[in-house]
Order: sequence, then C-alpha cells, then structure tokens
Amino acid sequence: MPPTRSTSTHRPFDAGGPTLADVGEAELLRRLTEIASEHSPAGLRLGSGDDAAVWSPQLATELAITQDALVENRDFRRSWITPRQLGVRAITVALSDLAGMGASPAWCTATICAAGSTGLGDVLEIQRGLCNAAEEFGCAVVGGDVSDIDGPMVLDVCAVGTVPAGIFLRRDAARPGDAIVVTGTLGRAAAGLRLLMDGVGKVTAADRDSWLDAQLAPRPRVGEGRLLLDAGVRCGGDMSDGLLVEAERTAAASGCGAELWLDAVPVDAGLQRHFPDSWIELALGAGEDFELIAAVDPATLAALRSGWPASAQPLHVVGAMVGGAGVQLIESAGGPPVSLPPVSSRHYR
Amino acid sequence: MPPTRSTSTHRPFDAGGPTLADVGEAELLRRLTEIASEHSPAGLRLGSGDDAAVWSPQLATELAITQDALVENRDFRRSWITPRQLGVRAITVALSDLAGMGASPAWCTATICAAGSTGLGDVLEIQRGLCNAAEEFGCAVVGGDVSDIDGPMVLDVCAVGTVPAGIFLRRDAARPGDAIVVTGTLGRAAAGLRLLMDGVGKVTAADRDSWLDAQLAPRPRVGEGRLLLDAGVRCGGDMSDGLLVEAERTAAASGCGAELWLDAVPVDAGLQRHFPDSWIELALGAGEDFELIAAVDPATLAALRSGWPASAQPLHVVGAMVGGAGVQLIESAGGPPVSLPPVSSRHYR
Repeated sequence: MPPTRSTSTHRPFDAGGPTLADVGEAELLRRLTEIASEHSPAGLRLGSGDDAAVWSPQLATELAITQDALVENRDFRRSWITPRQLGVRAITVALSDLAGMGASPAWCTATICAAGSTGLGDVLEIQRGLCNAAEEFGCAVVGGDVSDIDGPMVLDVCAVGTVPAGIFLRRDAARPGDAIVVTGTLGRAAAGLRLLMDGVGKVTAADRDSWLDAQLAPRPRVGEGRLLLDAGVRCGGDMSDGLLVEAERTAAASGCGAELWLDAVPVDAGLQRHFPDSWIELALGAGEDFELIAAVDPATLAALRSGWPASAQPLHVVGAMVGGAGVQLIESAGGPPVSLPPVSSRHYR
Repeated sequence: MPPTRSTSTHRPFDAGGPTLADVGEAELLRRLTEIASEHSPAGLRLGSGDDAAVWSPQLATELAITQDALVENRDFRRSWITPRQLGVRAITVALSDLAGMGASPAWCTATICAAGSTGLGDVLEIQRGLCNAAEEFGCAVVGGDVSDIDGPMVLDVCAVGTVPAGIFLRRDAARPGDAIVVTGTLGRAAAGLRLLMDGVGKVTAADRDSWLDAQLAPRPRVGEGRLLLDAGVRCGGDMSDGLLVEAERTAAASGCGAELWLDAVPVDAGLQRHFPDSWIELALGAGEDFELIAAVDPATLAALRSGWPASAQPLHVVGAMVGGAGVQLIESAGGPPVSLPPVSSRHYR
C-alpha cells in the first residue's frame, strides 16, 4: 500500500461503476463534452462537438504552443494518484511550459487513451480535473480525442497561451553576468516520488503531505512567469527536468556557461534531514517541481526583486551565467566546486 | 503475410538499427526537431527546442482546432503500414477535420509514445511522414512530445487551421430542402481494410492498389473544404466515420432529418462486384475515406457546381435534408426505402 496524502478524501481509481466498454465512445464523448462546456472560455466561438473548435485570437498577440503526454507506469501509477489529480497534473505539466514562456494560457485540447475496462467514472473525474485546473488559469478545454488502447493509459495535452507580439521568455537569451534566478522551493516533488517508490519511513506527517502534494498536485507558475516577463526579463523557462538540466540547457542555447551556488539553492528544509546522502540529487538533479528559472541582468534584477509581490513564489538568485560552457556547481559564490549529482529521468534511459 | 501495395518500395517497420532505448530521449528529440526544422513554416517566430513554439496569427482570422490520436492495434498495425505512411496518416486524420471546417492548415503538434524497443529509424520515418504531409498542406509541425510506453504505439496530433473570422463549415447549419453533397468516391478505404483483415482473394491488382492506398494513404480534402466555404456553403464536415453517421450527426445538430439516395452515392465500381453482400455497408456504414459532406441550399448549389474545378474531387448530390429527424436510406429519389446497413467502428463497441 503506497503512502497517501493524509487529508485526501478524493475518489481513487477503480472505484467501480460502468466501464468505457459499457457506455461506448459516442456516449463517452458526450459526457466529456458536457463537463468541458460547464466552464466558460474566453474567445471561444465554437466549442467541442463539431469537427474542430473555433477560437478568436486577440489583436497584437502571438501564440505559445506546447504539448505534453503523461503515460501510465512511466509518469504516474493509478495506485498513487486519484483520477482528479491526474487530470490536474496533465494540465499542469503543459501550463508549466506556458509559464516558462511568460504566456497567459488560452486554450488546450486533451486526448485520453484508455482501455475499455477503465471505469467511466474515472475518466469523467480525469476530465473534471483537466477542466477545473485549466479554468483556474484562464484556459479553455476546447476539444480532444478519446481512444481505446490495449495497454497503459495515455493523457496528451496540447496547450496554447498568448504573449504580446515578440515578447516572451526564451532559453537562448542569457549572457555572462546574468543572475540565475529560480522561483519557489526545490526537491519536494522528487522527495514525494521517493516516498511513493520506497515508502514513508520516519518522515513527519507535515513533510509527507508537503512532498506528496508537490509530486501529485504540482502548480504551474503562470503568474510568476508573467511577472518575470512584465519586469523585462526575456530569458527563462520552466524546470520540469530539474535545475541542473535546465541551467545547462539555458547555457547551451545561449552559448555560455552557468555557475550554481549550492548554499543559495532554496532546498526544502526537511530534505537534508531525511535524505542526508541524496538531498542534492533530489533538489538539483530531479525535476517535476515545475518552478521557473530565469537569467536576469543586474539592472533588471534590482527592479524585479523590489517589485516582486509577497503572494508569488519567492525568488532566489542561485548562481550566475558565466563565460565558457557547461554547468559548474560550487559550494557558495566564490567557493570550492562540488561534484555534480546524477540527473534522474524516468524516460528511456 | 498481409497484402501489400504492389508498387510500394517503402521501408517497413522493424527494419533494424538502433532503438529508442539505445539513443535516449534527448537525442531522439534532437533528431525529430532536426527533421521538423527542414520544413519552412509560415508565421513561426520560434520553433521546437524551447518550452513552447511561438506563432503569429494573421489579422482577422480565427483558429479551427482539432486533435486526433492513432493507437496501435486499434487504428493501425505495424505489419500493414510503413512508418512513413503512418506519419502521413496521423496528419491526414487531423487535417481532414480542418478540411471539414473549410480551414487552411497552419500548424500542428505531434506526440509519439513508443516503447524503448522501437527502432529509431522507424520513429524518424514517422516524423518525416508527419512533416512532409503537413508541409504539403501549408502546415508547420511546431512541436510535440515523445514518451516511452510499455505498450502500443500512440500518435496524437493537435492541428490548427485558420478561417476568416466567423466563416466556417459547421454541422448545425443545415435546413430542410438543402441538398446533401459529398466529395470523391466512397467505400475504398473500408474495402482496403477488409483486404488487410481477410486477405486479397480474387481482387484485381488495380482494385487492390486503389483500396489499399485509400486505407493506408488517404488524402485530406483541404482544397475541397475551402472551395465549399468560398462558394458560400456554411454547413459541412468530414466523413471520417462514414456517410450514414455523418449525415445523422448533421441532421441531429441541425434539428432536421436526412434522406440519402442509394443510387446517387458515388460508390467505387469494384465494390459491388467484389462485395455483392456488403458493398452498401462498406460505402455508407464505414468511414476513413476522409471525404467531405455538406448541406447546400439550392441557389448556392447551382453556383457551386458550375464553379467546381475539374482538378478537385468530384461533387455528388446524394440526398436531401428533410423535416423530422433521423436518416432514411432510399433506393433513389422518390423511391422505396432500403434498410440501413450496420455501422462499423473500431473503438470500444
């Protein structure tokens, strides 16, 4: 029995009732569309039910476009997560990419591939999670597809947001001398995954809940991405693959190097206590916290910090872009180097 | 050994070489992006490689949005189709929905879920098929996702096209008295599927090639959709699920009935010869020809027919929208009713 969030009263997978094979595809589509239509989308001229949805873009905006798939037994297990949480997570992963562009979510489409033996109630709960999470961030679920599959469940979300024409956070705009800034606290989601894989052990209830929530119910940093963009930042992205990987990507795309200061990284307090041998790996080498990273020149940084609202995830300067190439991890600014922890990935190798 | 298109010299699945597990996800993404970037998209400001692609919509246009998944052993089998054809098919299914709106394809994203044992060469061929087919119709492959899956391969395409603001083909705009019009010839794709399932038998080489091509390499009727829209037609869609189902959907959405005239349906000539007992089912009850259906008022119909170019798929009037509800199939206009054939679907039930 895997650990569960103690306060969770959510309906788990396989709670009984009719299956997809019982109701058939047409009825399933009708029910999914019914849920989607309860939410009120901006700019939507024609919703689900025709060959395609029709949406009106606003003047002088451009579209940021991303697509992310969650595959059962790779990205989630039914015993770990509720159907509602799974729907939220599928949206969150995609909206996090939009947050990483500084974009405002506008619409998305979601494909659900599930075996005929899957509970209809489970799929409807997934759809409620998708639609609720999307709506919270101003995003309409305008369509999608459902398909039978003789294998793992697949959720695939294409999400589109808007940015002012020509203005967005890109990976390749960092320069030596820029500060490396991250939002929030790192390592909780990886710690939550560790608990799900290995069991809870002696972790306190507060840490357990915080870490499982970070893994099972992450939040996209949409507001923080827009704050960065509004403050004049033009280089940034989300950290779905962890700080080390994302810092290296940013450095490589920008043709420079990056230096990370271990003592400046905002690591969850319980992590060092409970994982004395692997907290660096959890906080820097593993992803899924879905926080943002940005490279910010010194003048913009001062204004950014002074104007950063207390309601947003806190900003932390965790290093600097430097000349050369690659990422170096050091104990503290000007201090000795620390060996890079391994980077974990659940895909292919 | 299933029948193959006699002139096909294409590379089949499982042709050897490194697998996805051999190269890893980062290298796979790099190779897929490399293929996508060989094609020149209109309106694309930032392509694959960042958190999201960025695309500029044109003034006074709206977006038609659709998503379609192909699942292995439900929508295709690796022994039937080449990887290149599979990529083309995934795009075609999505672009057919855009054609059904009268939209001009603009961009798409494609997710590929495949087991680590899948050949890298196969996935690159799928991507070439996707990108070539998209480019042919003015559509850029701007991103997507790849994921390991311990099960069937899944291709999921989100496709977006543009229409003039407020002007598109919708399902719910038919009126009693409208002519029901279809493009092209019906039944070939279903006959091709029958050959793949049951073997070729005594079918001539010409019929075999024509039917297998229709099933394995269908074409989206993008040009025909735009012609309908330009001629003033406002009710229509694609026939991915076959004439009977699509006529019923159109009638139901429009609050009227539909009458189909069997002798007017453009059925492939070989179908009646080779499938004397099931040709009606193949031509009317099965889909995947990806032709278009439209409901056209008499005044528009005259102009539409006279202006229809010879290079487009031929237009056929196959019935009329009537009062009441539901679809009736009759031998010929004013003739006796014929019982409706069964409708086939490969999903759920």
